Amino acid sequence: MIFSQIHALALVELFGVLAFAFTGIIEARKKGMDLIGVYTVSMITAFGGGTVRDLMIGHYPLYWVQHSGYALMLLGFAIAAAPLSAVFYENSIITKVFVTLDALGLGLFSTVGASMAHQVGCDFYISILLGVVTGVFGGIIRDIICNEIPNVFRRNELYATCAALGSAVFLICLYFGIDELPSTLVAIAFTTALRIISIKYRVKLPF
Amino acid sequence: MIFSQIHALALVELFGVLAFAFTGIIEARKKGMDLIGVYTVSMITAFGGGTVRDLMIGHYPLYWVQHSGYALMLLGFAIAAAPLSAVFYENSIITKVFVTLDALGLGLFSTVGASMAHQVGCDFYISILLGVVTGVFGGIIRDIICNEIPNVFRRNELYATCAALGSAVFLICLYFGIDELPSTLVAIAFTTALRIISIKYRVKLPF
Amino acid sequence: MIFSQIHALALVELFGVLAFAFTGIIEARKKGMDLIGVYTVSMITAFGGGTVRDLMIGHYPLYWVQHSGYALMLLGFAIAAAPLSAVFYENSIITKVFVTLDALGLGLFSTVGASMAHQVGCDFYISILLGVVTGVFGGIIRDIICNEIPNVFRRNELYATCAALGSAVFLICLYFGIDELPSTLVAIAFTTALRIISIKYRVKLPF
Repeated sequence: MIFSQIHALALVELFGVLAFAFTGIIEARKKGMDLIGVYTVSMITAFGGGTVRDLMIGHYPLYWVQHSGYALMLLGFAIAAAPLSAVFYENSIITKVFVTLDALGLGLFSTVGASMAHQVGCDFYISILLGVVTGVFGGIIRDIICNEIPNVFRRNELYATCAALGSAVFLICLYFGIDELPSTLVAIAFTTALRIISIKYRVKLPF
Repeated sequence: MIFSQIHALALVELFGVLAFAFTGIIEARKKGMDLIGVYTVSMITAFGGGTVRDLMIGHYPLYWVQHSGYALMLLGFAIAAAPLSAVFYENSIITKVFVTLDALGLGLFSTVGASMAHQVGCDFYISILLGVVTGVFGGIIRDIICNEIPNVFRRNELYATCAALGSAVFLICLYFGIDELPSTLVAIAFTTALRIISIKYRVKLPF
Repeated sequence: MIFSQIHALALVELFGVLAFAFTGIIEARKKGMDLIGVYTVSMITAFGGGTVRDLMIGHYPLYWVQHSGYALMLLGFAIAAAPLSAVFYENSIITKVFVTLDALGLGLFSTVGASMAHQVGCDFYISILLGVVTGVFGGIIRDIICNEIPNVFRRNELYATCAALGSAVFLICLYFGIDELPSTLVAIAFTTALRIISIKYRVKLPF
């Protein structure tokens, strides 16, 4: 049972990385970047948030440095997806699939970020902040490189807010003595559900 | 006497953080950002310079990670100030107050940055550079996120120059055997005075 | 013989730093920045790539922090070159000289980056990536500060690709038991030649 939960988490991670990278590929192609740009932006979108978090708490080695398989996989993904990105972008079914995977990835990444911050002794509020950083800073750097004001700061839906509340749910679960693994699954489910509801019903912050 | 000087420094820090955050709130609102954007930009403006300095010298834990009270306080400040930022911006008295507090903050932050660099063994010139980084990089990242060329690079007044000369004054005081605390106070007074004079008389670099 | 090779490398480093700084000065002046902006952008262009690499592998102290002579030299260079940058920019011979020095610097910086990553235990692919980061991230940050989409992502010539292949050549030389120094020289020659060929014959990525 625990094994299958861990396998499920590995799958969520894979899907999340691909979905985050996908948004990077789309944005980079929209700006007319070549393969180098597409690959760099997809790597930064997928691993930028975790990298910023690791720099903030001094955690080494970085995830993508240690797991070079992901970096190679995204190279293949960029080569395959870059010429087709316009097709992807216009296909509403593919877009919906990737928005859902992105929501799953947001849940996993922010939960893992909050967990790592908590483990190195950050308090409740800073752990939430670092959870949000892990979930959203890849996209922020993507938008800065693409010369746009970060999308996450002007969305008409909730995004960073889902990451913040999901991180809080995770930490509260831990506080009540629930194990790391089930707490993670609850937090991912919560974040993903909130994100999808906010898209569907156009929930946004009052200001 | 020393105690009251330390209390004065704590007050200067509080005012400086608020003034730096305030410029972030103003810029973020001008760009139409929501609360998430306003809060993130205000945090980065207030703590970005110190964070970059800490990354440059490998100093952990980061200030805002360790003092989570500030992060929470700025959340309250962002919630309170964001809807009112247009009023603030148009009120010339409030603006003048914040420009003065900003000058005080610039003096404190660059002095503290130069001091920390000096303590870990950086030489005179690099300590000045890291003092300037501490004082101005928060504003640089704020402007990059807001999709503007950093203000500090095109001001019609002196800003980074005040931080550089203030840091130099601090290090020279130390060199002549003056204690850390009075050196800090002298450097803050010098930086603030220079900054206010440069605004009043429109002093700027020759090129 | 080895001594003269080391001297040659020191010269390549000096020329590379100047060439990278020069592109920063040109871009900063085009954007109307003052001396502070010109100096900051030139420093970031010259040392940004190595700094990002060092942050990625947790390597301290940073190169420019330890070798403050370079930081001071670039201050002099910025003061001397900033008012003249328009002249430089329009002079095709000076531009050609600096493009060649830039190619040499790209070769050296990416090789050194790949070497440092290899030494701390990164595998083949990540070492190449960190070689590329060292060679090109200074320019990326320069363009982000200057509010442009990074040039390296939309060039009509090969740039990052030269750094990647040069880093690979270096690591393959090491793998076949060739010493660090001759491997470095071979990799620099390869990178520089490829870069100049790609400019001359307008070689670019297929997409």
